[in-house]
Amino acid sequence: MTRNRLEAFSDGVVAILITIMVLELKVPHGTDAGALRPLLPVFLTYVLSFVNVGIYWNNHHHLLHTVDRVNGPILWANLHLLFWLSLIPFSTGWMGENHFAPLPTAVYGGVLLFSAIAYTILTVTIVKHHGAYSKLAAAVGRDRKGKLSLVMYAVAIPLAFVNEWISDALYIAVALIWLVPDRRIERLLAR
Amino acid sequence: MTRNRLEAFSDGVVAILITIMVLELKVPHGTDAGALRPLLPVFLTYVLSFVNVGIYWNNHHHLLHTVDRVNGPILWANLHLLFWLSLIPFSTGWMGENHFAPLPTAVYGGVLLFSAIAYTILTVTIVKHHGAYSKLAAAVGRDRKGKLSLVMYAVAIPLAFVNEWISDALYIAVALIWLVPDRRIERLLAR
Amino acid sequence: MTRNRLEAFSDGVVAILITIMVLELKVPHGTDAGALRPLLPVFLTYVLSFVNVGIYWNNHHHLLHTVDRVNGPILWANLHLLFWLSLIPFSTGWMGENHFAPLPTAVYGGVLLFSAIAYTILTVTIVKHHGAYSKLAAAVGRDRKGKLSLVMYAVAIPLAFVNEWISDALYIAVALIWLVPDRRIERLLAR
Amino acid sequence: MTRNRLEAFSDGVVAILITIMVLELKVPHGTDAGALRPLLPVFLTYVLSFVNVGIYWNNHHHLLHTVDRVNGPILWANLHLLFWLSLIPFSTGWMGENHFAPLPTAVYGGVLLFSAIAYTILTVTIVKHHGAYSKLAAAVGRDRKGKLSLVMYAVAIPLAFVNEWISDALYIAVALIWLVPDRRIERLLAR
Repeated sequence: MTRNRLEAFSDGVVAILITIMVLELKVPHGTDAGALRPLLPVFLTYVLSFVNVGIYWNNHHHLLHTVDRVNGPILWANLHLLFWLSLIPFSTGWMGENHFAPLPTAVYGGVLLFSAIAYTILTVTIVKHHGAYSKLAAAVGRDRKGKLSLVMYAVAIPLAFVNEWISDALYIAVALIWLVPDRRIERLLAR
Repeated sequence: MTRNRLEAFSDGVVAILITIMVLELKVPHGTDAGALRPLLPVFLTYVLSFVNVGIYWNNHHHLLHTVDRVNGPILWANLHLLFWLSLIPFSTGWMGENHFAPLPTAVYGGVLLFSAIAYTILTVTIVKHHGAYSKLAAAVGRDRKGKLSLVMYAVAIPLAFVNEWISDALYIAVALIWLVPDRRIERLLAR
Repeated sequence: MTRNRLEAFSDGVVAILITIMVLELKVPHGTDAGALRPLLPVFLTYVLSFVNVGIYWNNHHHLLHTVDRVNGPILWANLHLLFWLSLIPFSTGWMGENHFAPLPTAVYGGVLLFSAIAYTILTVTIVKHHGAYSKLAAAVGRDRKGKLSLVMYAVAIPLAFVNEWISDALYIAVALIWLVPDRRIERLLAR
Repeated sequence: MTRNRLEAFSDGVVAILITIMVLELKVPHGTDAGALRPLLPVFLTYVLSFVNVGIYWNNHHHLLHTVDRVNGPILWANLHLLFWLSLIPFSTGWMGENHFAPLPTAVYGGVLLFSAIAYTILTVTIVKHHGAYSKLAAAVGRDRKGKLSLVMYAVAIPLAFVNEWISDALYIAVALIWLVPDRRIERLLAR
């Protein structure tokens, strides 16, 4: 019962975040193609953030599937994750409206980094509650993908001040690591 | 369990989209009938989009009802559908505020076309996962209505630059095909 | 299963509507009591609309509780109700920002009237589907309260152009009829 | 069944409130660190309100967990709580944008005070319905934390006109009382 409500609440927040991001795509005043052009970077960051939030929802879905019991720390670790995710629409809007300027690009990466850290804390909190030999601990394993994502975000943030396209490429790369079906990546990481 | 969460999340996103569209109906400053007149096209597009989103929710409801198992590709095909649906409020607002100008009318049709394609991909993904002889495959059948909708949208988009009212009539026609009780249409299509 | 999803979707839409209305309470620029004064009528209409939407949610909750089966017409009758409820934030904002001017007050009543008609249609559709001697048909009975509300709204709309306070008093009276515990009112209506 | 829907609806409203507050973090026009500086107080009040709403969700979750039956008064006591919670985004935005000026700080405390009163009314309504010797009555006990919170808010409101930082410190203190794991505080309060 308790787990269902945790899932339902998280789904509610994520569903709203994903749709609030669309509000940054403001209806233009003109009616020709030129009116749409300034919306292109806003649209592209929307796609990137939609995919990122989709990945979180997907992983959150799998993570909670193995949870048997929910306690206070898990509830708060989950709220902590939702807090960082809730800043994604803001950072998406700032980066998109400023055509990927350095500071907004770095802040975008920072929000993604803290979201990833919050997700790691949630995983650790759940594993702790269920025991190191539980179904979940086995499923999470060494979490190479998670660790690699953290490193890539941490590298991308300072690089935004060198060349913002490197950071953007890293953000897209992290998304692709999670999007592409698991097996090949898993083997690559396993080597 | 998994299917329930997929339904709940989709319902959340669709519920938010349907209400976000109302926000384009901005409170006018005047208090006489003249203040309401410029809102008329916005209101009419709102009605059209409300009905369209309602049809998607309705069909999505029936489609998932026959699903037994959910896997990664189904989750992403569903998110892909939600992505295109999430652009409906933007395109509705642009078309409504510009009194059905050619480009906004074409873009509106484009969003509906890609939503319909995404719905088809979701159906195919689910049928693949359940087998060609499953309950679902039988229920979907040849999907004449779906194919007819795709063709009508594809025709309506270029026609927006000839006469936007033809496109609008086609959008309304597609909605009516899905709204009117099935039997007659089914027979008509079966001939 | 199907009923649960209908409830969940309706709850989602109503939850969003109730919170979207708060957005009309725009953060003022000043920091003294004078900055809050123009918000008073907006706040009062927010309270009235919150109570009205709360009554609909409450009644909807009880109505669906007796439903066994859901079909296409019920789904659409429910969406039709949600459509009219979705216009409440707009009409609330227009009436509140214009300090209860005649036309916005009449439009507010019109949205409430059509919501009440849509609720009646939903009830009739459900009763039809379940049979005139079902649990629900007995529970709904003659629906005196519902009919009285329809009449009061229909009277309040033209009266807004005579004196808007009469209309506002009628809107509040309808809300009180539903809020005050049933027994006394039921007896009063039964006489 | 009924309890589930009450939980789901409340979760929906709370999920939307928590995300609506983010909308006050408006995307700045500049792209340097100076553009972010005026957002700092808005961000800090967002964090405080996020934690407060999170605490309400957490406690609401536990409170309803012990509920067996839901009746009309419980439904309305719950809607009454949601009403006051729905004013948190407005008061958060007003306080944040005005850098903790006296009146906005007092109004923020007022909304928190009325939310706490509404939560107390909900608890009392539920206990009344289940009996003074029920599982819930035992779990709630003397509700020292709840009473202490009410007193601290009531003290903080007038103090905002003396020095707003005292009020802010009190708001943070109440949040910490609920955040820090129960045992120590419970013992402290028990002395």
